[in-house]
Amino acid sequence: MPQISLKGKEMPASPIRKLVPYADEAKRKGVKVYHLNIGQPDLETPKPFWDKLKNLDMKVLEYCPSNGIASYREKFAAYYNGIGIDVKANNFLITEGGSEALSFAMMSCINEGDEIIIPEPMYANYIGFATAGNIRVKPISTNIENGFALPPIEDFEKAITSKTKAILICNPNNPTGYLYSKEELMTLREICLKHDLFLFVDEVYREFLYEKGPFFSALNLPGMEEHVVVIDSISKRFSACGARIGALVTRNKLVLEIALKFGQARLSPPSLGQIAAEDLFDLGKEYYDSIVAEYQHRRDVIVAALNKIPGVVCPNPGGAFYAVASLPVKNSDAFCQWMLEDFSYEGATVMMAPASGFYSTEEAGKNQVRIAYVLKADDLKAAAKCLEEGLKKYAEISVKELAR
Amino acid sequence: MPQISLKGKEMPASPIRKLVPYADEAKRKGVKVYHLNIGQPDLETPKPFWDKLKNLDMKVLEYCPSNGIASYREKFAAYYNGIGIDVKANNFLITEGGSEALSFAMMSCINEGDEIIIPEPMYANYIGFATAGNIRVKPISTNIENGFALPPIEDFEKAITSKTKAILICNPNNPTGYLYSKEELMTLREICLKHDLFLFVDEVYREFLYEKGPFFSALNLPGMEEHVVVIDSISKRFSACGARIGALVTRNKLVLEIALKFGQARLSPPSLGQIAAEDLFDLGKEYYDSIVAEYQHRRDVIVAALNKIPGVVCPNPGGAFYAVASLPVKNSDAFCQWMLEDFSYEGATVMMAPASGFYSTEEAGKNQVRIAYVLKADDLKAAAKCLEEGLKKYAEISVKELAR
Repeated sequence: MPQISLKGKEMPASPIRKLVPYADEAKRKGVKVYHLNIGQPDLETPKPFWDKLKNLDMKVLEYCPSNGIASYREKFAAYYNGIGIDVKANNFLITEGGSEALSFAMMSCINEGDEIIIPEPMYANYIGFATAGNIRVKPISTNIENGFALPPIEDFEKAITSKTKAILICNPNNPTGYLYSKEELMTLREICLKHDLFLFVDEVYREFLYEKGPFFSALNLPGMEEHVVVIDSISKRFSACGARIGALVTRNKLVLEIALKFGQARLSPPSLGQIAAEDLFDLGKEYYDSIVAEYQHRRDVIVAALNKIPGVVCPNPGGAFYAVASLPVKNSDAFCQWMLEDFSYEGATVMMAPASGFYSTEEAGKNQVRIAYVLKADDLKAAAKCLEEGLKKYAEISVKELAR
Repeated sequence: MPQISLKGKEMPASPIRKLVPYADEAKRKGVKVYHLNIGQPDLETPKPFWDKLKNLDMKVLEYCPSNGIASYREKFAAYYNGIGIDVKANNFLITEGGSEALSFAMMSCINEGDEIIIPEPMYANYIGFATAGNIRVKPISTNIENGFALPPIEDFEKAITSKTKAILICNPNNPTGYLYSKEELMTLREICLKHDLFLFVDEVYREFLYEKGPFFSALNLPGMEEHVVVIDSISKRFSACGARIGALVTRNKLVLEIALKFGQARLSPPSLGQIAAEDLFDLGKEYYDSIVAEYQHRRDVIVAALNKIPGVVCPNPGGAFYAVASLPVKNSDAFCQWMLEDFSYEGATVMMAPASGFYSTEEAGKNQVRIAYVLKADDLKAAAKCLEEGLKKYAEISVKELAR
């Protein structure tokens, strides 16, 4: 049998999805599973999306242009203008989710074997995209003690080598929920200008802001027109994860031109999602206010509930809909699997994403989990209670095992 | 300004799409453009696809599983069983078009710097996917004189090195339309077993067969369960290019497992296209017969018309809806651009894909073009006439320039 590739062996399995078989098995046994593992919002995809599909009058579902449907890009640009970012339709390359946008950005801007600096914990799939592109991730530690704030500039300086080509942050952050301030972005600007680095900023959660807002987009950093590449997506903004419509946004024309060659190779992003989503950019303040209020309530509920559990620490996130919590366990991978395989409380259990997969540094974050607060507040309360009971039981078992 | 990557520089621009700006300019000047450059069928996407979208009763457009929606994979497997291929739903990984399936196959099976053998001319984007994965394409020449048949086994033996990991063919072929026989596939089987190579076969055009059928799928090669990876897509079969729904099909469980890790990194393929396409697998013989009859007629019309033009040679394709023709010009890139920029006949011109981009060998195929016969027969006749007049005019200009 022919051998598979080294890259294939090195690709990380998704920490968000690798426990799915255990969750499926739990469900087969009749256990209800609270899914806090994945950023799949339960909020409805807004009605204009479905209406557009219902009223389609098309005969042939054609390829669209490799950079996306022109009218969709126009609407997208108008939405950017509306939030104070001065870009035009031709600054966008529409992609298959934010995932593809980041892959394209990495492959267009970073040589194989070269380095990208990313504060960790980081969105797990960044490591996957880097592995696929043979790019080295240089993590910079952030700490749960100060809510995962941007590390001091010296930490970046220490990590930069002649092979460093870019810095990547997610703002507001997945998995920590940390919202970077304008000052922190200005610090990153300074570093990028000094060392001539690209600054990739994943802003897919930019609407999900709580009391620490307003949001400052990297596209508004002065003098960074050639350096900044923003990753965007409609998945979370419009609760349309299955549409697979993202975007790469930059004023750097060469990056757009190069990324478009990768785009041409895969022909085009999905047409249906763009067509259906176009009118969603007309949704006004009311829509965004309502989703933010809902998530803020959920955040308040889950963060309070988590911090009440003995031994659990969870900083209060400023944005997005994730939190990283540390648990009184040694190995959250084993614990999360145990919760699905061997535990239930009142017929239910909780699925979380072990944080180890969000760290590029070996053995880091072993006692942490990522929590996506994408369920209704009552379910979040029930899930927290279930987690509390699970931790109790797990501690008892551990004590017994030690006594053996 | 930070530098873009070497890979980005090396990525080929799509020969199918790179002339689009010239076509757009021609249209702005009021010239009608016959698009023979791209395999975008004009046939209608079947009604059940649109009906499904009209009648959707969903609230949230969620991510689907990374390997695709289970019910879609079941239907897909049933369609395979119906055409005599014994696979199950878990042999499929649903992807963002055939493009992503081939990218995943390459990255999962071939190390960076290692080699894949592909008969040329080849589908241009194969070169792009290989470039993105830092994989070397080793082309094997096929010739217009014998209709681009599989080269003798000795040519493969000569090309195989210790770095060769796979052979890739497209059957029926894009761009040549050549239909590989069972005997030719058995020859490839022999080579792959002898050298322990993967055999990737892009079968997205398997329904588009003319008198030389029936089709023999690589999945039915005996003793090749671990070696064969088939690339599939609904784009052409159901004229649904914009859905971006493809598949990687294999009985090699390890390849599926590894490819799934790349799939998890990008979360999921588009949900909408799968949901809408599911019922299309219920379309029977009547549907396939009607599309084959239509394309066969078109093929007969365009191939006859092309071969009547002085100096043009076009072998008769056995399948798919492409043909490669040689033209009486030195450089088809320049000629195709000239046709769009400087020529029209009765208010129209023709857009073709210069074949140079379908060759990995430098300077090969410079006098050839790929023709996609995806227009109605009358339009194909008009396009051929327009090409004939263009070639006449181009020859006159060339003579004048030589005389200068």
